[in-house]
Amino acid sequence: MIYLDNAATTRPSQGALARAQTYLTDCFYNPSALYHGGAEAHRLLRTARASLLSHIADPAAYDLIFTSCGTEADAQAVFGAARRGNAVTTAGEHAAVHESFRELKNRGVEPRFAPVLRDGSVDEEALLAMVDDKTSLVSVIHVSNETGAVNDIAALARRVKQKNPRTVFHSDGVQAFGKLPFRLSRDIDLYTVSAHKIGALKGTGALLKRKAYTALPPFVYGGGQENGMRSGTENVFGIACFYYAAEEKFACLKEDGARLAGYRELLWELLGHDLYTRISPADGSPYILTVSAAGKRGETLQRMLWDRGVAVGTGSACNSKKPHSRVLEACGYPTAVLDGVLRVSFSPATSEEDVRAAAAAMNDAARSFGG
Amino acid sequence: MIYLDNAATTRPSQGALARAQTYLTDCFYNPSALYHGGAEAHRLLRTARASLLSHIADPAAYDLIFTSCGTEADAQAVFGAARRGNAVTTAGEHAAVHESFRELKNRGVEPRFAPVLRDGSVDEEALLAMVDDKTSLVSVIHVSNETGAVNDIAALARRVKQKNPRTVFHSDGVQAFGKLPFRLSRDIDLYTVSAHKIGALKGTGALLKRKAYTALPPFVYGGGQENGMRSGTENVFGIACFYYAAEEKFACLKEDGARLAGYRELLWELLGHDLYTRISPADGSPYILTVSAAGKRGETLQRMLWDRGVAVGTGSACNSKKPHSRVLEACGYPTAVLDGVLRVSFSPATSEEDVRAAAAAMNDAARSFGG
Repeated sequence: MIYLDNAATTRPSQGALARAQTYLTDCFYNPSALYHGGAEAHRLLRTARASLLSHIADPAAYDLIFTSCGTEADAQAVFGAARRGNAVTTAGEHAAVHESFRELKNRGVEPRFAPVLRDGSVDEEALLAMVDDKTSLVSVIHVSNETGAVNDIAALARRVKQKNPRTVFHSDGVQAFGKLPFRLSRDIDLYTVSAHKIGALKGTGALLKRKAYTALPPFVYGGGQENGMRSGTENVFGIACFYYAAEEKFACLKEDGARLAGYRELLWELLGHDLYTRISPADGSPYILTVSAAGKRGETLQRMLWDRGVAVGTGSACNSKKPHSRVLEACGYPTAVLDGVLRVSFSPATSEEDVRAAAAAMNDAARSFGG
Repeated sequence: MIYLDNAATTRPSQGALARAQTYLTDCFYNPSALYHGGAEAHRLLRTARASLLSHIADPAAYDLIFTSCGTEADAQAVFGAARRGNAVTTAGEHAAVHESFRELKNRGVEPRFAPVLRDGSVDEEALLAMVDDKTSLVSVIHVSNETGAVNDIAALARRVKQKNPRTVFHSDGVQAFGKLPFRLSRDIDLYTVSAHKIGALKGTGALLKRKAYTALPPFVYGGGQENGMRSGTENVFGIACFYYAAEEKFACLKEDGARLAGYRELLWELLGHDLYTRISPADGSPYILTVSAAGKRGETLQRMLWDRGVAVGTGSACNSKKPHSRVLEACGYPTAVLDGVLRVSFSPATSEEDVRAAAAAMNDAARSFGG
C-alpha cells in the first residue's frame, strides 16, 4: 500500500515506538506517584515538554499543556479565550475550531467567520475588518488541512494586536508542526499541535501558551496535572512517542520539505491535466496536493485507488448530509469540482517511486471512471 | 519490584498490548477514512464499544462514549448534566468530580457536598436530604479510590429518582469497573470508566450513557466522532488495549475478587496492629487496603518501602499545600492518622508471596521509622 493520506493520520514511527516502549513495560508508573518509578515517568513528561517546546518556541516565553488531541487543544483555546463579546475565525478552519465557534453562540459569544480566498487561505483584510474592541479571540489555521495553503499567522497576529491588544490570538498548527520551519512570535498566544500527524500516536496533542497570557482557564478539572491546566493521568506512552517522533521530524525538517515540495510538483506534472484540476497553491505546504477530477465522485475514485494500492484522502466531510467540503465550498468552487476532490498528502517516508505510481493510478482511475 | 499501587495505575497487560499491536503498525489508519483501512480501524471501535458495554450494561439501553480518560468522562458528566439549580455529590469523590463541582459555582450552579462516613462511603440520608426539585445532577463515586468503600449506587440512584425524577444520576466507576461484579440499573444515567486501572493504557476512558437520557451535550466539538459526543481522532490503539484488557479482567472477575479479598485480609493480619490502623472497611473493594502508621509520615514510609522493593500509594494529595487527603480528612480522622496513610492496592497478578513480602516490608519500615 502506497499511503498518501498523511494529513489524516501517519503511520507511527517504528523508531519512536521502540524508544517509548519502556513506558508500556518497565516505567508504566503514574507520574503523580511520589516514589522513584513515578518520578521517572514524571521526568519523561518534563523532558518531552521542553523538547517539543524548543522546536518552535522560546521555552522562557511559552508553556506547553499536553492534551488528548489537537481537537481538545482547540477547544481549550476557543472556549477558554472567547468568553465575552465576539470571536473571529476563518471559513477555512478545521472542524475542531469551526464547530467550537458555532457552539460559542450558545454561550453568549458572537462568532464571526472571515472569508477565504480561492486557495483556502484567509482574506486578511476581511478578517482584520471583523476585529473590534469587543473581540476576545482571533483564531486562524496555520496550514489548511484541505488545501495546504499557509496563512501568515505572525503577520496576522501582529496586525490583530495593533487593532486590539487585548485580543487573544490562537492558531491551529496541526498541519504545520513538524512540517514547516517557523517559530512562534510573541503576538501568538496559543498554538495547537497534534502527535498523530507526525509519526506519533492518536490520543496526544498539546496547546502551547504564551506565559504572559495568564487568563486561560483549565479545560478539564481534577488532580491538577499539567500545572492545573489539564487534569487527568498523563498519557505517558503517547507523550513519549510524540517527543521522539518530533525529534525525528525536526532533525530534517528543511530537507524533507524541499524534497516533498519537489514531489508535490512532480505529482502535479504527472497527472493528466485533462483529468485533474489543481486546488493547492504553489506556495502551500509541501505535504499536501489537493486536486479535483471535476464531475467524478472523489469517494469513488478513492476506493478505486485503494484497490490499486494507493490510499489518498477526499474533500468529503465524511457526512452523507453534506457531501462537499465546507472549506472548499467557501473557496468558491462549483459543485462539479467539489464532487471530485482528492487530497494527496505526503510524509518524509514518501519516495519518488510512490509519487510516480500514485500518479499513474490516479490517471488510470479517472480515465476508467464509470467505464 | 512488588507493585501494589494498582489503584494509581496498572502495568499494561502484555496480552492486551500484543493483540492491539496491529493498530500501531498495519492498521494505523484514521477511522474516519472511507477506504478499506479506515473502515477496519472503525470496525475495531465498534467491536470494542459493544464489548466494553456488554460487561456492565444492557447494550440496548446504554451508549458508550470513548474519552481520553476517566477525568474527562467525569467532566463531561458534571458540566453536561449540571447546568442549572444545584448539584449534589459526596465529600468522598475523586478530584475529577470534586474539582469539577467546585468549578460549577463559577458557572451559576450551586454545588452541595454530602458528608461521608468513617469508611469513606457517603452518608446516604444526608445526601438524599440535599436533593430537591432544583437538583439537576447527583454524582456518587462507586468505589472510593482512597478507602475502597463501596457505595450502593443502584439503591441511591433509585431513591434520588423517587425524590426528583428529572435529576441526572452519575457515578464515577473508575475503581469498580473490571473489579466488582455489577450491572448498571436503569436509574443510573451516566457512568465513568478508565482503561489504565485495569491493565490498559493511560489516555483512554469512557462515559456510559443511558440512551433515554438524550440531553447530554458534547464536551469536545469538531469532526463529529463518537456520534458527535466527543470529537477528535479516536485513540484506536488505546481503545483496542482497553477492549482486550477488559476481556481479560471480566473473564475471571469473581475468582479474582474472592482471591484478592483473601489477600487483603491476609495482609491486614500480617501487619503489626501496634504499627498500623485499618481504614478500609471489611466489605469494601477487594483491591484496596488502606491503613495508617499513625504519627509517621506516609510519604517517608512509601519511599522506604520503594527501597525495600515494594511500591504502595499514600493518602497524600500530592500537594505540599495540603499534605493530607481531603477525603480521609472528611472521614474524620485525626492529624496523626492522616499523616501516616498508606494505600495498598492489588491487581489480579498479585500473589500471596507478594502480600507476605509487602507485609514484612511494611512492618520493618514502620518499626525502623526515624530509628
